[in-house]
Amino acid sequence: MLIRPTTEADIPYVHALMYELAVYEKEPEAVLTTPEEYLRDFLAGRFESMVAEIDGKVVGMTLFFEAYSSWKGRMLYLDDFVVSESYRRFGVGQKLFDAFMAEGHRRGCRMVKWQVLDWNEPALQFYEKNHAIVEKGWWNVKVFFPGHLGDTTVVSP
Amino acid sequence: MLIRPTTEADIPYVHALMYELAVYEKEPEAVLTTPEEYLRDFLAGRFESMVAEIDGKVVGMTLFFEAYSSWKGRMLYLDDFVVSESYRRFGVGQKLFDAFMAEGHRRGCRMVKWQVLDWNEPALQFYEKNHAIVEKGWWNVKVFFPGHLGDTTVVSP
Repeated sequence: MLIRPTTEADIPYVHALMYELAVYEKEPEAVLTTPEEYLRDFLAGRFESMVAEIDGKVVGMTLFFEAYSSWKGRMLYLDDFVVSESYRRFGVGQKLFDAFMAEGHRRGCRMVKWQVLDWNEPALQFYEKNHAIVEKGWWNVKVFFPGHLGDTTVVSP
Repeated sequence: MLIRPTTEADIPYVHALMYELAVYEKEPEAVLTTPEEYLRDFLAGRFESMVAEIDGKVVGMTLFFEAYSSWKGRMLYLDDFVVSESYRRFGVGQKLFDAFMAEGHRRGCRMVKWQVLDWNEPALQFYEKNHAIVEKGWWNVKVFFPGHLGDTTVVSP
């Protein structure tokens, strides 16, 4: 098993893994990004990524970017973290997670952050095993822009 | 009242406003950033900011950065949004919020996102008035790095 930075050629697989997780999270219809958009935004440096490869096949990925916490300072934000269903329970996720953590540490970030669905027990167990802190008192707030997508609520800025 | 991009000279006031909100949010001890660190990170482009000015005084601010949603694509993330206590109820917050939204729209982002404490009723009312969507099913997960701060839980990557 190899953990390595994502390349342009991996992007369709990274997008497919993201979609596989969105199905597991019961919100595939919430996905608006396309593989073409991922490629454009990846090449523009709008996100970074690592993949796990087994026998030449991309079986897992992390998708992250450098963010900022007004309280903590520099951080890495992990927006997606997926191991394909049939490759779970072999330590692929742990290796991907470790590589992500090492990257945040290497850059001098004070923390790494991500989110988890409150019912996703296997993920919560994994994060607790990795000594992560789970915060339950913050809600997400979002506004979508009209013309950019067909989501439920849009407003004019 | 003037809403304008933050300059280097505003940074101490931006930091003080962030701290004022952290006190209101009952977590001043969670703040590890300093005004010096803000200045360094602002000049390095690690965050962006706008301020509200009244009679030459900085009375409010937004602190944000460009982020990425694996489901929605380009977005702006609003990490802090403060109007000083004695300047509330005069529409300063609405003008700062509108300027932030306009910035996200101008860049072609699909959405803007931020977080709110579940007990912060005035903030929730403001966001609902502005047609934002509040999501309650996601928890934050964080890991802090050793050596970078004196927080409660640290792990070695």
